[in-house]
Amino acid sequence: MTSYDQLHTHFARLNDLYHVGAVAQWDEAAMMPIGGGETRGQALATLDGITHGMLTDSRIGAWAAAAQGESLSTWQQANLREMQRSYHNATCVPADLVERSTLATSRCEQAWRQYRPENNWQAMVPLLENVVALAREEARARSAVTGMALYDTLLDSYEPGMTCAQLDPLFNELKEFLPGLLDEVIERQAQHPPLLPEGPFAIEEQRQVGLEMMRTLGFNFEHGRLDVSHHPFCGGVPSDVRITTRYSNDGFVASLMGVIHETGHALYEQGLPAAWQAQPVGQALSTAVHESQSLIMEMQACRSREFLHFLTPHLQRGFTAAQPQSPVWQEENLYRLFTRAQRGFIRVDADEVSYPLHVILRYEIERELIEGTLEVAGIPEAWDMRMQAYLGLSTAGNYRDGCLQDVHWPAGLFGYFPTYTLGAMTAAQLFAAAKRTAPAVPAQLAEGNFSTLLGWLREHVHGQGKFLDYTALMQRATGEALKSSHFRGHLRARYLEDD
Amino acid sequence: MTSYDQLHTHFARLNDLYHVGAVAQWDEAAMMPIGGGETRGQALATLDGITHGMLTDSRIGAWAAAAQGESLSTWQQANLREMQRSYHNATCVPADLVERSTLATSRCEQAWRQYRPENNWQAMVPLLENVVALAREEARARSAVTGMALYDTLLDSYEPGMTCAQLDPLFNELKEFLPGLLDEVIERQAQHPPLLPEGPFAIEEQRQVGLEMMRTLGFNFEHGRLDVSHHPFCGGVPSDVRITTRYSNDGFVASLMGVIHETGHALYEQGLPAAWQAQPVGQALSTAVHESQSLIMEMQACRSREFLHFLTPHLQRGFTAAQPQSPVWQEENLYRLFTRAQRGFIRVDADEVSYPLHVILRYEIERELIEGTLEVAGIPEAWDMRMQAYLGLSTAGNYRDGCLQDVHWPAGLFGYFPTYTLGAMTAAQLFAAAKRTAPAVPAQLAEGNFSTLLGWLREHVHGQGKFLDYTALMQRATGEALKSSHFRGHLRARYLEDD
Repeated sequence: MTSYDQLHTHFARLNDLYHVGAVAQWDEAAMMPIGGGETRGQALATLDGITHGMLTDSRIGAWAAAAQGESLSTWQQANLREMQRSYHNATCVPADLVERSTLATSRCEQAWRQYRPENNWQAMVPLLENVVALAREEARARSAVTGMALYDTLLDSYEPGMTCAQLDPLFNELKEFLPGLLDEVIERQAQHPPLLPEGPFAIEEQRQVGLEMMRTLGFNFEHGRLDVSHHPFCGGVPSDVRITTRYSNDGFVASLMGVIHETGHALYEQGLPAAWQAQPVGQALSTAVHESQSLIMEMQACRSREFLHFLTPHLQRGFTAAQPQSPVWQEENLYRLFTRAQRGFIRVDADEVSYPLHVILRYEIERELIEGTLEVAGIPEAWDMRMQAYLGLSTAGNYRDGCLQDVHWPAGLFGYFPTYTLGAMTAAQLFAAAKRTAPAVPAQLAEGNFSTLLGWLREHVHGQGKFLDYTALMQRATGEALKSSHFRGHLRARYLEDD
Repeated sequence: MTSYDQLHTHFARLNDLYHVGAVAQWDEAAMMPIGGGETRGQALATLDGITHGMLTDSRIGAWAAAAQGESLSTWQQANLREMQRSYHNATCVPADLVERSTLATSRCEQAWRQYRPENNWQAMVPLLENVVALAREEARARSAVTGMALYDTLLDSYEPGMTCAQLDPLFNELKEFLPGLLDEVIERQAQHPPLLPEGPFAIEEQRQVGLEMMRTLGFNFEHGRLDVSHHPFCGGVPSDVRITTRYSNDGFVASLMGVIHETGHALYEQGLPAAWQAQPVGQALSTAVHESQSLIMEMQACRSREFLHFLTPHLQRGFTAAQPQSPVWQEENLYRLFTRAQRGFIRVDADEVSYPLHVILRYEIERELIEGTLEVAGIPEAWDMRMQAYLGLSTAGNYRDGCLQDVHWPAGLFGYFPTYTLGAMTAAQLFAAAKRTAPAVPAQLAEGNFSTLLGWLREHVHGQGKFLDYTALMQRATGEALKSSHFRGHLRARYLEDD
């Protein structure tokens, strides 16, 4: 057995444990009764400990060094690189720091579930200070090994290779562009506000429409399912992708677009290179690329006029509450409904125009937190100042809908937020490239035909796994590095020029 | 840390891995789409390998030896005994034999899924010969360590301490008694055959009636769920018990009694001693005792006249197809329907009168197979001879409904069959004891009140875990060793004396 083969076997075993962990996590969110939580948490913690032990096994370093001298295919070389990346990421943070962080974030996250509804910022401060202190410690530990800047080390764990130096010019372009655009769009849309469809919308009907759209987009039901959970997500494993949504009787748009968003994630997983399924190189490239796949479906394709043309009769037929003769249920009104821009407090409810402003606000604050130029006590002021500047809204005293709204910081996920907007820009650039290669795509969407689009994504993104890095993938797929111009152009075309 | 504490921690970690394995297995049967099967099988095999490695860790032997000298409570002593039992059971079979058996049974089981519907016995012979050869090898390996008789070593792994010497007199009493009883019962019932309720019975209605009966019996839905699978089972973990059933639109009796049977299993799991949940002593005592808990609910309690009195209005209200005025839907007719005895080929469809004959037939054949006095090629003849003798039916040439009907032998489960009938006898003896202690139980069942019965089982069986061995448990709970007379008395009372 070569050293590479040893690594191959070791990581395949690790992948098998990730598999059972993914099933248990999906089950926890979608199936588990409340009383199962305590033992489930314990079981997953033990499994985590065992996988962490396997991932930091010192033999990996020795095998990897020896494998460098072995004759490897290009995919094997890429796989070796990804194994080493996982190993280094897992070993450069001391085990006791990992343990203290797990404890601190678990406490802080549980407290957040109580204190957010109570709008109790003061009670959160000490817990969050603890989490931030440990995140700073992690960044210092990573930086000491890699030489990277503090915040970059955290960003890198979600988006390998991404740095603030690359991010800042792109985000600055959006900061320049979006507030003015949002004003203009809101004024424009005020002339023709959408009429709201009246429910109730039976959950089983919403589910059937959702399943129909999953089939339309190309979801393979032999390798996945749709269920319900409190927060929609895409979980499971590539051979068995589990997506979830949540339903309300009052409206169908959020649940349907949730299904389509998660289907975008799922199509990426289902399209990963099957031959490398159990190996690191066979996994999805990064958080931003994953988000781009959901946003290509949700934002680029399925809020387009073309797709609304296809969707409208399905909605008219799918809901008992629909009145196909009423102006509410006409294509034009539904398009207005699906592309409405609004100023709001809550990131997860934001439309694609205002969403990046929510992200940039968080990015700027969390970067200062990690770099030590801002303390936890100063978050509300920093938050309110930016909400006023970017979105013209005041969150003074309203922590619940302000800096307490997201689980990310209590959960210790610093460096994650930027990937949402990187994903949106990536989606726009990939979608534009797909349409350049295959100009028929929009007309096909109007017929509910996703085969060309999906084929292009399969070839340029899904099937690549982690073979290429982000820069190379974008270069090959779109002919250029990531730019904000495609995203800006998309927003202008949809929200200002279209009529 | 004492050696006992080391063991405690080690087995708690092992239990955490069993937990995620149990979730993944439940998911495979109840949720997984077909295309997830291959990677799931691989993932579970890796998890099995890791748990097997932990269970055969040589430190266990050393810790256990040292723990003998430590000051332990009686429960800790019992826990130590059960840890040692698990360790010895796992280590007395060589690892390569375990691996060869896993491979052979997995192949044979897959072939069985194809060849049973095809009635193709000849194709099964070589595969089954391989499985039997390995089972004999396992029995020899166990016997070499324990000194036990060959078949006893296999029986012992499902029913610790049980031997053929104890089993044979009990089974002989049933063999004497049941064929004649069955003749008599069938003749008696022919005078008043039950009228068959006509469907279709909507699956959602069946599900609701099933959930209602689960609540009635005392199932705790904060710690469990009801779902659907091809074969009904009780899985999950004690803090989160997952039971399943299957539905047909044509009838509701099988699915409802499936739910009640699995609820009996589930109540045992939910009643295991919570303080010992993660330890060997906190697990269910044995396969037969588990079966006794399902049969107390399904056979003893829920096919009684008293319970049918309670159930009848629920059925009348629960099904759109029910005609409450019709004689079909009266208590007396439903009782006849729920207690109908018939001669049939298929074990899993058998009533409680004929079921033990199916079991004894299998026990006699598999014992000869393991002892080497019968070869695989001789199974059909041995089967047919006993079917004629015990049930008066010929299975000549009909392998599908004869010796190919069960998955147990292809799956290598030799020594399992007797536990079904041990469970039926145990159930009758425990139920009789419960009624002696609490004569109000039958009247309570007529009101759908299971609290006294469940309380008695919680105290005498569920809450004991593996603290007592089978003999001691039966002695304390019923005042005597296992006898066949309670079961025989129950059948006589229900099927001959009642009117």
